[in-house]
Amino acid sequence: MTVECYVVVHNIAKRHNVGTLARSATAFGVSELILVGRRDLNTFGSHGSTSHLRFRHFHSLSDARLFLKDKDCDICGVEITDTAMAVNQHPFKKSTAFLLGNEGTGLSAKECEICDFFVYIPQYGCGTASLNVTIAASIVLHHFGGNLLEHHRSPY
Amino acid sequence: MTVECYVVVHNIAKRHNVGTLARSATAFGVSELILVGRRDLNTFGSHGSTSHLRFRHFHSLSDARLFLKDKDCDICGVEITDTAMAVNQHPFKKSTAFLLGNEGTGLSAKECEICDFFVYIPQYGCGTASLNVTIAASIVLHHFGGNLLEHHRSPY
Repeated sequence: MTVECYVVVHNIAKRHNVGTLARSATAFGVSELILVGRRDLNTFGSHGSTSHLRFRHFHSLSDARLFLKDKDCDICGVEITDTAMAVNQHPFKKSTAFLLGNEGTGLSAKECEICDFFVYIPQYGCGTASLNVTIAASIVLHHFGGNLLEHHRSPY
Repeated sequence: MTVECYVVVHNIAKRHNVGTLARSATAFGVSELILVGRRDLNTFGSHGSTSHLRFRHFHSLSDARLFLKDKDCDICGVEITDTAMAVNQHPFKKSTAFLLGNEGTGLSAKECEICDFFVYIPQYGCGTASLNVTIAASIVLHHFGGNLLEHHRSPY
């Protein structure tokens, strides 16, 4: 079984995040970065890693979903829901696409609709702070890779 | 036993990284962000989280080490060395300070000298890409918190 990993970004608010996201996606073995909706992107911060990463664009979430389902891919939303599991406890089993919403507001109802299940990132200490969206994505990809992909050694 | 977590940054090259780092540090229960050497910082990207986080400054690495050792704190370098362990396999046991080097070059010999042990972040897929330093820090803090600190739920 070939296991693939995708990241889906819908109308990303801060375009410079796409470059940093591409860099982490490359480090963690992501096959394709899927941009839905807003197409313009700025790869600042990617340190050239975008050359090793495929980008794909869809106009709508349902088009992206069809593409992923055709590849027998789970769609995992990164969001707190009643059924969300801590990302470090989720038993990822097959090809998975991770859907991230905008910072602050998280995934919209429309975005949640295309997800098969949800994971959240546990926080520690007092109160709750928000994480940068590329950091959230990196932590999720790190866990997925640790479960299912071969690994190499790198400090960062 | 009270467990504390620290992040030590020595002459951070990209000042805007300090703000994003502060935001993740808050999310993952870090007690203090310790800046060594270069003092100037720009908290762009912190989303106000710096108000919940203490900063401390030392002129030299050895001064920072003395402060941390006085608190019976392990100093963990994030770097590939012969003895480095994958961060997701390290059995963190007590208060720990994480030392991160500059992107690209990693930790210098002088920085490595003050470390008690080292962890690295496994990468997945083909080749090796570099991670943004704040992303590397966040992944390490996420694991440390998961071992030793109480947690809350948050998507990002």
